[in-house]
Amino acid sequence: MALLVQKYGGTSVGSVERIQSVALKVKKARDEGHQMVVVVSAMSGETNRLVALAKAIQEPSNPRELDVLLSTGEQVTIALLAMALEKIGCPARSYTGFQAHILTDSAFNKARIQEIDDARVRADLEAGFVVVVAGFQGVDEQGDITTLGRGGSDTTAVAMAAALKADECQIFTDVDGVYTTDPRVEPKARKLDKITFEEMLEMASLGSKVLQIRSVEFAGKYHVPLRVLSSFEEGEGTLITFEEDGMEEAKISGIAFNRDEAKLTVRGVPDMPGVAYKILGPIGEANIEVDMIVQNISHDGTTDLTFTVHRNDYRKALAILQEVAKGLNAREVLGDDTIVKISLVGVGMRSHAGIAGTMFGTLAKEGINIRMISTSEIKISVVIDEKYLELGVRALHEAFGLAKA
Amino acid sequence: MALLVQKYGGTSVGSVERIQSVALKVKKARDEGHQMVVVVSAMSGETNRLVALAKAIQEPSNPRELDVLLSTGEQVTIALLAMALEKIGCPARSYTGFQAHILTDSAFNKARIQEIDDARVRADLEAGFVVVVAGFQGVDEQGDITTLGRGGSDTTAVAMAAALKADECQIFTDVDGVYTTDPRVEPKARKLDKITFEEMLEMASLGSKVLQIRSVEFAGKYHVPLRVLSSFEEGEGTLITFEEDGMEEAKISGIAFNRDEAKLTVRGVPDMPGVAYKILGPIGEANIEVDMIVQNISHDGTTDLTFTVHRNDYRKALAILQEVAKGLNAREVLGDDTIVKISLVGVGMRSHAGIAGTMFGTLAKEGINIRMISTSEIKISVVIDEKYLELGVRALHEAFGLAKA
Repeated sequence: MALLVQKYGGTSVGSVERIQSVALKVKKARDEGHQMVVVVSAMSGETNRLVALAKAIQEPSNPRELDVLLSTGEQVTIALLAMALEKIGCPARSYTGFQAHILTDSAFNKARIQEIDDARVRADLEAGFVVVVAGFQGVDEQGDITTLGRGGSDTTAVAMAAALKADECQIFTDVDGVYTTDPRVEPKARKLDKITFEEMLEMASLGSKVLQIRSVEFAGKYHVPLRVLSSFEEGEGTLITFEEDGMEEAKISGIAFNRDEAKLTVRGVPDMPGVAYKILGPIGEANIEVDMIVQNISHDGTTDLTFTVHRNDYRKALAILQEVAKGLNAREVLGDDTIVKISLVGVGMRSHAGIAGTMFGTLAKEGINIRMISTSEIKISVVIDEKYLELGVRALHEAFGLAKA
Repeated sequence: MALLVQKYGGTSVGSVERIQSVALKVKKARDEGHQMVVVVSAMSGETNRLVALAKAIQEPSNPRELDVLLSTGEQVTIALLAMALEKIGCPARSYTGFQAHILTDSAFNKARIQEIDDARVRADLEAGFVVVVAGFQGVDEQGDITTLGRGGSDTTAVAMAAALKADECQIFTDVDGVYTTDPRVEPKARKLDKITFEEMLEMASLGSKVLQIRSVEFAGKYHVPLRVLSSFEEGEGTLITFEEDGMEEAKISGIAFNRDEAKLTVRGVPDMPGVAYKILGPIGEANIEVDMIVQNISHDGTTDLTFTVHRNDYRKALAILQEVAKGLNAREVLGDDTIVKISLVGVGMRSHAGIAGTMFGTLAKEGINIRMISTSEIKISVVIDEKYLELGVRALHEAFGLAKA
């Protein structure tokens, strides 16, 4: 008998019929002898409906009141799912954030979980109930309702699993697992049975939107075994694991990509301490997130600094840079918002020089020019023109033999 | 400076625009220097929407989960109203049932308030906030969410007013006060400036659906001055008061009526102790509420017992009586579901014999036959054929000079 935490997102509980089919899945696991905690999101469309109501009244909306409003979405789902479970002979009890004692800080709209007092949930599990918990929400020390930000239901599930020391945290989504790359770009993409936390973090942050990145970090930190599965199809999904089989072997797990990038370059800035800070400081102050940063060696005492931002922030970043460049006596500011990033992700690739070579060679053979390169312990990222995205992903998928298991 | 509790029902907060206009009303009172607590219901239609969702899944729905579900309706309204208040420069803070520490028993769907810990609400009032409280909901000792049953928002308002020792509890509805009778039946009906609690209880229980009867009882018990006003029109409404001006004078406050009545008679039952119990016991066990009960003197050792029930329960009550009558050797069972009840309500009428005479004489003059009579300290009720309802109400309204102030 295991203790499982399952999480179903908005699409999975988007209608009465889908809630009923989630109930059947939960009952099946319980009939197999498992203790079950189920975390659910708001029915799809509900959060948007509530946000629209709030906007019609006050924009930006008072953060505290917005959380009072939004948290009702999940509260509706937990009640309906508990009813659906009881209806099919599976005693269940729902828990809002405050009832599950999910204590957070007071950062409304983006609160962080600090502690979970799971005494009552444990008692209900022992008594044979399925415990249904509202995702995305908590309560702060003053008793104010907080929400964890969009996608926070994944985090709730992982936090419950960590608090309860669950055997597994299963995230049910509309995909059946983590793939070697996006199947819409490369139809030969293969579902992975396993992936390490580090790889998953890279895949997630690079745009494979299967899991919310915070929840993966959280799971890694508290050593919660995490599994991604489909709500709609049978299957084992993908297990995100701590075991790294064959560490010595360079294993490419997949190819992630991100279409939302834009790059900016400040050319000919004096190569002296503090320059990077003078350029990137104002960008950060404007709340613009910087992704890749590349600075190469200098020529004649000056250097070029290039970085990428989200495409939505491109115009704003460009305007800021033009101001900054003046003060730095930089030669010019260049920008391009028609670029994409492709990354090869895999444990232990750093120590295998052949991999970078194969990657660059493959792209060259297809006539794809590489604009930027950045590497980490478990990934190699390149920036290329957006028109080459599909071609590049497919060529790399083939070159690293990812279609074969 | 007074402390006012205002309550706005579902129609008054039925849209974004209406919520904004409630905010203006609240701000106006606050600008006059009052401390404000506002209790709100779910937006009209919302509770029905949620009930329909629940029914689609489980019927009857699990009572605990139904309360988790339904309580979201008011939670949406408090957040939106708090935002609307803040938007117009009126700092506000919303409170769910658990946040306002409205402690109830555990009778889901029809919980009773046991205690309110108002420390935090008081602190917010002192700090200058308008406090917006979700009506209809509370929390039990285990931390489970409860609801007070339909119309329970009135009760929440009165309970908050009692706990805070508010100067007045103002119930805003879609009528502008309590009338001498229903203006749809008698266009000359006049709005009362004042009515006593006892009279209001009789008026409410007799079908003048202005206030939920429980909230009036509650207000009477805790001596909370209650005022009924219109959400949509300016005016002083009707104050429900403890002072009884001119007790010696018989004052008729109004004429209430109820169309939902049906009467049943068991004829020729042995006139002996326990007979009424033998007849009415099985009716009560079948959860049928009995309204008027009349038993006259006996003839030849037998008597007739007549009582009225809600029309919806008529067929069921008739079937039960036919069984009971056999065991009692009763002569026959008679029934009529085309009757109505009209009541004259006023303090001190019992001691003024002339009133009953005027009432019966007025009806006789219109050719209206009286089928049953029952009296209490502050009312005289008669049962007549339903076709005479409007005629009877208008004749009595005229006879007692209710159109004049």
